Amino acid sequence: MTKYSVGIDVGGTNVKFGLIENAGRIIARRTLSTKNYASSRKKLINALINSIELLIKDVKKSQVCGVGIGLPGLINSKVGVVNFLPNVPGWRNVPLKRIMQDELKMPVCIDNDVNLITLGEWKFGAGKTYKNLVCMTLGTGVGSGLVLNNRIYRGEGFAAGELGHVPLNEKGLKCSCGGEACFETYVGNRALTAKAAKLFKLKNIRLEEVYELAEMGNVRAVQFWQEAAVHIGNALVGLVNLLNPRLIIIGGGVSNNYKYLGQTISKIVSTRCMNVQAKMVKIVRSKLGDDAGIIGAHVLVKEGKVE
Amino acid sequence: MTKYSVGIDVGGTNVKFGLIENAGRIIARRTLSTKNYASSRKKLINALINSIELLIKDVKKSQVCGVGIGLPGLINSKVGVVNFLPNVPGWRNVPLKRIMQDELKMPVCIDNDVNLITLGEWKFGAGKTYKNLVCMTLGTGVGSGLVLNNRIYRGEGFAAGELGHVPLNEKGLKCSCGGEACFETYVGNRALTAKAAKLFKLKNIRLEEVYELAEMGNVRAVQFWQEAAVHIGNALVGLVNLLNPRLIIIGGGVSNNYKYLGQTISKIVSTRCMNVQAKMVKIVRSKLGDDAGIIGAHVLVKEGKVE
Repeated sequence: MTKYSVGIDVGGTNVKFGLIENAGRIIARRTLSTKNYASSRKKLINALINSIELLIKDVKKSQVCGVGIGLPGLINSKVGVVNFLPNVPGWRNVPLKRIMQDELKMPVCIDNDVNLITLGEWKFGAGKTYKNLVCMTLGTGVGSGLVLNNRIYRGEGFAAGELGHVPLNEKGLKCSCGGEACFETYVGNRALTAKAAKLFKLKNIRLEEVYELAEMGNVRAVQFWQEAAVHIGNALVGLVNLLNPRLIIIGGGVSNNYKYLGQTISKIVSTRCMNVQAKMVKIVRSKLGDDAGIIGAHVLVKEGKVE
Repeated sequence: MTKYSVGIDVGGTNVKFGLIENAGRIIARRTLSTKNYASSRKKLINALINSIELLIKDVKKSQVCGVGIGLPGLINSKVGVVNFLPNVPGWRNVPLKRIMQDELKMPVCIDNDVNLITLGEWKFGAGKTYKNLVCMTLGTGVGSGLVLNNRIYRGEGFAAGELGHVPLNEKGLKCSCGGEACFETYVGNRALTAKAAKLFKLKNIRLEEVYELAEMGNVRAVQFWQEAAVHIGNALVGLVNLLNPRLIIIGGGVSNNYKYLGQTISKIVSTRCMNVQAKMVKIVRSKLGDDAGIIGAHVLVKEGKVE
């Protein structure tokens, strides 16, 4: 008997929904534009519930074993409370798991979005069978999920994995987190876009265009990605020496430029890390792309409990 | 019925032995000078065995449940093989557990020395009851042990915890590990001693003397420790944001200057780390001092297995 779950990835731009069968295959999808529902918490929760009901209308409800939701913020996944979403107002200490369960009459699990991307890549993507891996997401935010000793490591207060806020230098630009010289101030979307605008003297240039320029052989564009890769590599050196992972998965929008990043990143890690750690670590691009989050939400539902 | 174990800490200067009863109390001790036995592997192993036999001669052998040994290097604690000791020649892939068990006819466990210091502080020292902590050792080498999700995290190849080789900056001094700008090049004993020699124009000054100068109110000496504390604090920022630990324990010889370090370290962590992580983390000095390693070796024996 096939069982399904609903995987949801609440992002800054879109909310993605997938009806996913046991083996991880997405058999139906929906999408909402986040900003249409971000004005109130209730509006967004209602939209989630409506979309779930539309998504599962063609399967028996008894075959849906639960709903998993990834959200961009601090999530107490153990009790199912959204502590804080930095970019969506009105979300402080919301018992989303309970609210949704009461409405849907089925199990609901919630977690941080990057943890779910990591779960997805670990169980169905680039990280299958690995016991110790780091899944880094390079986008507007820079984050990571940690699989250590064959378990997701969430930290004492569910805030672990903030690789974007590991300083690359002792001094540097102020970061929105209150820190200084954070990795994200070098390779977050905002930092890269600002750098590209200056470099190409085009105020509204998008990173996709810098990629296209590189594809056309533009030397400055290729150089631009190489410089980003140097920072990414430098950030991974500390991570690899500290955690001795077997695998690093690189995902998020910026990883679409992997062609121009991968070699430089790997070279820095292999030359600058300690011998044992360097020999042992493999660096790869994410495999599930934008689907990693909803597939990870499915894994969360299947695993049924969060430690 | 009281049970004992033998805890051994093989250091660069001394080998420390303790006969330890179940509750963690050291009831007898021995010490060897490492350099007298470092010339050959066999000599050191024989010295270990002789010292163990002398140490346990006053208790019934049947009451000794095993021997735990911490060594300064890469140790496969699961199979009991010393892969490599960077500062003791002749130790490459030595099946020390098997060799010692064959001689002693009792269980022997081995592990990296910093992991055992961490185990000791976790079970009997400053880290009791904590689930997520980092135990940093500041000495000739700078290292750390990681307790994550209530277990020691050793990494894919038993090389995790190398906090001393997390870069503090993208560019900096070459490190003995082959890397650059590693934390250890700022606050390792060698780096600090060289800096003190320059500052006080005394070629052979020892760090203990810089401490005494600070105690006498010497402004440059106080400043010297404060500058070290800034680097230590900066290194902890990334660690705290990434791992969201509940506790950081600071040990090793340099921590004897905690009086001049603690406040600055805590201030940097609380102002520069992300809010959630900063509020949650406590920074304390180690409690077991030089005994942490042998007490941790006792814990390793008691726990009986290494994952």
